[in-house]
Amino acid sequence: MGNPVLVEVVRGTLVESRHCGAVAVVDADGRGVLMLGDVERPVYPRSAIKPLQALPLIESGAADRFGLGAEELALACASHGGEVGHVETATRMLAGAGLDPSALKCGAHWPIHQPSAQALARSGGYATPLHNNCSGKHAGFLCTACAMGADRASYFEPAHPVQREVKATLESLAGVALAQDICAVDGCSVPTWAMPLSRLAHAFARFGSGQDLAPARAKAAARLRAASAEKPWHVAGTGRFCTEIMQAFGARLLVKTGAEGVHCAALPEQGLGVAVKCDDGAGRAAEVMMAATIARLLPDARDRAALERFVRPTLRNWNGIEVGGLRPTDVIGSDGV
Amino acid sequence: MGNPVLVEVVRGTLVESRHCGAVAVVDADGRGVLMLGDVERPVYPRSAIKPLQALPLIESGAADRFGLGAEELALACASHGGEVGHVETATRMLAGAGLDPSALKCGAHWPIHQPSAQALARSGGYATPLHNNCSGKHAGFLCTACAMGADRASYFEPAHPVQREVKATLESLAGVALAQDICAVDGCSVPTWAMPLSRLAHAFARFGSGQDLAPARAKAAARLRAASAEKPWHVAGTGRFCTEIMQAFGARLLVKTGAEGVHCAALPEQGLGVAVKCDDGAGRAAEVMMAATIARLLPDARDRAALERFVRPTLRNWNGIEVGGLRPTDVIGSDGV
Repeated sequence: MGNPVLVEVVRGTLVESRHCGAVAVVDADGRGVLMLGDVERPVYPRSAIKPLQALPLIESGAADRFGLGAEELALACASHGGEVGHVETATRMLAGAGLDPSALKCGAHWPIHQPSAQALARSGGYATPLHNNCSGKHAGFLCTACAMGADRASYFEPAHPVQREVKATLESLAGVALAQDICAVDGCSVPTWAMPLSRLAHAFARFGSGQDLAPARAKAAARLRAASAEKPWHVAGTGRFCTEIMQAFGARLLVKTGAEGVHCAALPEQGLGVAVKCDDGAGRAAEVMMAATIARLLPDARDRAALERFVRPTLRNWNGIEVGGLRPTDVIGSDGV
Repeated sequence: MGNPVLVEVVRGTLVESRHCGAVAVVDADGRGVLMLGDVERPVYPRSAIKPLQALPLIESGAADRFGLGAEELALACASHGGEVGHVETATRMLAGAGLDPSALKCGAHWPIHQPSAQALARSGGYATPLHNNCSGKHAGFLCTACAMGADRASYFEPAHPVQREVKATLESLAGVALAQDICAVDGCSVPTWAMPLSRLAHAFARFGSGQDLAPARAKAAARLRAASAEKPWHVAGTGRFCTEIMQAFGARLLVKTGAEGVHCAALPEQGLGVAVKCDDGAGRAAEVMMAATIARLLPDARDRAALERFVRPTLRNWNGIEVGGLRPTDVIGSDGV
């Protein structure tokens, strides 16, 4: 309760809507660098931790065994738009493990990327699990299950070896114990365990820096970071925040969105992790919170200029008229630490 | 600032997201019956006041001159889904005034109703201004302009006789002066004037009861209420909150959604008006705020049973698994006044 207003939505001369939230920036030793709002309240990280959930894909040997390259690894970390290239990459991941798309248990939805949804309908197609924004993660889980010799039908259940390995990985990176009573079901049916933003940020600081990780895990994290930096379109898609930020910043920045206003980032050069939660679950505000936080942490003028359109996005109406915009409040600011 | 949490989003055992807001319930004399949060802060009413914006369509004589029936009048009050029947009704309204769809200046977007958007793409079609959720309102403005003998090209501009008449109507119903400095541009390019929730609720109480209105205006309001009650599908569409509530309650309840978490209602039998604003702009929470408020005002057990699925909607994931839901907090409650 009582988190500060971090983002305002302006129309005309007035603030039309307000978004409260919390921000945690933590270094690899777990020290708080910037804490706004309640960063100890448990938060379901949802899709924001897909890069961490993908570690067993490499550590199990599955990525090497099935010949996964940068596109496939980036897609395993993705909430993708269901564009043709995303669907093709997920199909390829499954085929490499001898599976077809019917193995996916994430559920079907139409592509998030609207022109792709329209093109799919125009071609006479329908939504399938391959179009689900989580299909790359699920294909990764299936590859991991195959490499572990585990059951392929129940890979999404909390008791399955893949999900147990994911849970142990999260506990180790975040330094928390994840009990059953804070486990919920995610949009794609895999478990999501709640943890404080401070712990989530710490996990991303360690994922980004490799500090205090076993050599195999540090190497796996570096490989996922490199894949996301090399193929940022595969992590989200055309016009999306995560893709455009990583296209601009390359390996200096890994950002990942999650449902209900969660956003995480790793800044490997600074050894920092960031976790953001917009109280009301709005993605538009979580993006501004993340962009404004990054702008505080990257005080170089060129970096700030590249971030400006994400820190203060413009709102246009159906006729293209500028009607307002979003902006961070002074609480979060973007004027340097 | 500091409005109370009125709606919680639950996943598993935890509250995942929280929505703050304000609620005003006012009688036709302007007396507050229920006030939660800051009800004096100016709020852009957006599409929630479409029924009030449609009064000049009748008062100008346009509705009679162009033979508009219940479907057309309901569509003039609508934020519709762009379903085939909506598009046909808007086309008919324009044709009656001798206009074609190119007269619409609301901008084009794909149908909000997703199956209709997919069917449009599948048929080789594209988004047009007729699919814009505001096309019925704009067709009504154009009919009004024709009846007034006013320019048809600039009907959406603040200085146009139609918009001046709309403004004067709002000022009279709400008992406020709407100055230029609180005028912004709406999503469909018409002006939207900010006013306190308390005034907005009063305007709906008067619109619903006809109390203290000139006979012609009271008759016009009654005709728009009757049209919405008779044709609720034309006010929103398949599966939509406003449509389903009005299908269940008929002439006892007029509800109208607006962008950025605004929701308004009139309860003619009680002589009450309701205006709700979710601080962060979320429609999902504004609907729960409105449903829970109505449940307080309609204490009959059958009415409450009919409202329950809107007061506490369930959240399901892409596999149809129940993962959580929304619920009003004790601040708003639904346990009677």
